[in-house]
Amino acid sequence: MPHCDIITIGSELLSGFTLNTNAQYLAKQLTDLGFCVIRQASCHDQIEEIGRVIDEALGRSDLIILTGGLGPTPDDVTRQAIAKRFRCDLMFNSEQYRHIVRLYRKIKQRVPSLTKREALFPDIGTPLLNHYGIALGFYIEYNRKLIVVLPGVPRELHGMFKTSVRNLILKKFKKRESFFKLQAKIVGVSEPVVMTKLGKQFFKSRVFDFGIYPVPGEVIIRIKTKNRVLRERLKRELKAIFKENLYTFGDEDFSEAIMKLFVKKKKTLAVAESCTGGWLAKRVTDPSGASRYFLGGVCAYANQIKINFLDIPALIIEKHGAVSSIVAKLMAKGIREECGSSLGVGITGIAGPTGGTPKKPVGLVYVAFSDVKRTKVVRLQIPGERDRVREWSVNKALFGIWTWIKKP
Amino acid sequence: MPHCDIITIGSELLSGFTLNTNAQYLAKQLTDLGFCVIRQASCHDQIEEIGRVIDEALGRSDLIILTGGLGPTPDDVTRQAIAKRFRCDLMFNSEQYRHIVRLYRKIKQRVPSLTKREALFPDIGTPLLNHYGIALGFYIEYNRKLIVVLPGVPRELHGMFKTSVRNLILKKFKKRESFFKLQAKIVGVSEPVVMTKLGKQFFKSRVFDFGIYPVPGEVIIRIKTKNRVLRERLKRELKAIFKENLYTFGDEDFSEAIMKLFVKKKKTLAVAESCTGGWLAKRVTDPSGASRYFLGGVCAYANQIKINFLDIPALIIEKHGAVSSIVAKLMAKGIREECGSSLGVGITGIAGPTGGTPKKPVGLVYVAFSDVKRTKVVRLQIPGERDRVREWSVNKALFGIWTWIKKP
Repeated sequence: MPHCDIITIGSELLSGFTLNTNAQYLAKQLTDLGFCVIRQASCHDQIEEIGRVIDEALGRSDLIILTGGLGPTPDDVTRQAIAKRFRCDLMFNSEQYRHIVRLYRKIKQRVPSLTKREALFPDIGTPLLNHYGIALGFYIEYNRKLIVVLPGVPRELHGMFKTSVRNLILKKFKKRESFFKLQAKIVGVSEPVVMTKLGKQFFKSRVFDFGIYPVPGEVIIRIKTKNRVLRERLKRELKAIFKENLYTFGDEDFSEAIMKLFVKKKKTLAVAESCTGGWLAKRVTDPSGASRYFLGGVCAYANQIKINFLDIPALIIEKHGAVSSIVAKLMAKGIREECGSSLGVGITGIAGPTGGTPKKPVGLVYVAFSDVKRTKVVRLQIPGERDRVREWSVNKALFGIWTWIKKP
Repeated sequence: MPHCDIITIGSELLSGFTLNTNAQYLAKQLTDLGFCVIRQASCHDQIEEIGRVIDEALGRSDLIILTGGLGPTPDDVTRQAIAKRFRCDLMFNSEQYRHIVRLYRKIKQRVPSLTKREALFPDIGTPLLNHYGIALGFYIEYNRKLIVVLPGVPRELHGMFKTSVRNLILKKFKKRESFFKLQAKIVGVSEPVVMTKLGKQFFKSRVFDFGIYPVPGEVIIRIKTKNRVLRERLKRELKAIFKENLYTFGDEDFSEAIMKLFVKKKKTLAVAESCTGGWLAKRVTDPSGASRYFLGGVCAYANQIKINFLDIPALIIEKHGAVSSIVAKLMAKGIREECGSSLGVGITGIAGPTGGTPKKPVGLVYVAFSDVKRTKVVRLQIPGERDRVREWSVNKALFGIWTWIKKP
């Protein structure tokens, strides 16, 4: 499998001003095309540094993709650094320049004189026209290795990668490896529990790439193997091990999986939120088509709203407090009855950082589920900051909704 | 100025599965503390690779911060890689383990046996307790250089950096450079408009680092200079140029700035959402203390909810459609009256990708604002995908709320 280095150039990356989405974009594209990205590095817009980082990459990779530092201003020195490294001169590409002139004519501005620099490329290389912006790209073939240099503007990078770079590297590197991939998304259990459930047996006497990635509310397993039969076997095993906790082998989100089941079973949902303040409703309405099962919700922040919209007796709030098991239950029941939904969910808690008491500390959250037969409530004590308490509550609510709709 | 390398370990970074927010976070923190980050690199969870990337960094930097690969699963090998590189053994830290046991007790689960690994550290190093999660961090002093190893879970990384790493590196490296920094957060205008408003004059005959960063709903300007007087002058100029559009020179979020004004002016807010499905309420309740002004909201996804909760006549929805100027107005007015708030906001629109018609295409959104004196409505036609339409609508609503509360 050809090895690949991704180099992203730009002082804004090393000062933390800019999030490096280019590195992720390229990593994903190259991996999907069957390359093995072995290193990604960012360095400053400095001629010596750029030369060094290229040399390091040449030492280990067959393909080097480099972005950034091709702009018109004097701090952009990627072209010069490469010309210096390969002891060559810069050449002017008139085709790119004609395109630049057309672009400026469109927006009725004069071409700034600095812009000429952006049509330059090292004369040992081959230009890659940039139809998506100003800066010319280029590539260099060197000791059977390929160095591709692209602009750092994400939209331009994506456009050029799709239209010209993709074909260029597929043509040059024919011996790529193809894999069978498997992804499983699991909810309701933590990463260590997933590993324990898999056990040593799962990994014994067979070879495959295994990755496990916890994201809020979920654990994602990714497997890569050259053996198609093994992929199918692993899929069956995962299904058997995780049962109801495994919600998809696809790319869909949890809220999408929930939606599909509700629609299929012709059930409806309504939610009443306090501490999560609309986040659950937001998640539920993330997928397109949510209106087929989600009727709506109330964000009952003030007690008066709980009383007015959800018919919760003021006396009960007074006696038990707004954050209590009984109020969560009444919220779930109230929203279900008000909206006429099959399931109602109620969330009340203390997200913090203020508002906690010794008896009801920050992180205490009640999540209740009510259907026509019964109302049940879960008590959570969530560690961490406000955002985490809120997100965790939303994920627990989604998991409860999922468990309910999964029941035969 | 001490030189610094950031190393982020994880195959998920090189396959493009995960966006490397840790690299940006660390780059920003270190730069702010007066370090010069000269390189950032990502490598696979492989013992030899991790050793190599550390060696490369030792060759150029005084401080190396390394994250990731400290999890409980066999694919996490950072500890072992470091023990191998520095030819030392791993030691068990019972203090971290006691903390782990407490965490699991809190959530009423048994401690998985794999978790023990996460309390290990190389015996030539010093442990850094992780109060924010499971995995122990540590640091190693080696040839007058400092290597700090931290977990890759962003929340844990941030927590540990703030509470222990920051002090550790400030103590160790005293000769840092100090800059005067200025950040301005601007809403309601796009990046090119901001640049045009600044004009060439702003940059003429004075030297400072300038960065401009568009984020959803906002444009952030960041300036760095060694000249304190210049910083103050630039601050005054930005204030004069952007007036009401500049909401803070600080770090606060827009929803926090809005909250402060509402609380100061003793006004209250309630919102009724359709296509944004609770996202506005979620944003409004992001900051702690939102209950001081935010009464609540209704997520009126089904028409019946609009009728029941917001007193919108069914006939009007029938005649004009749920996505119409009049329904948005009635939602804003309805929620204000139901909750008794000073301001009511109503949002209705077609987030797509389905549900559009030639007359009412995807991306059509009405946002209405109602106070005791008047109700006004803004008609938006937002390009892009579902998520973008929803986020843009929320940002426009927040901007309208801001404009309303800013009025004298």
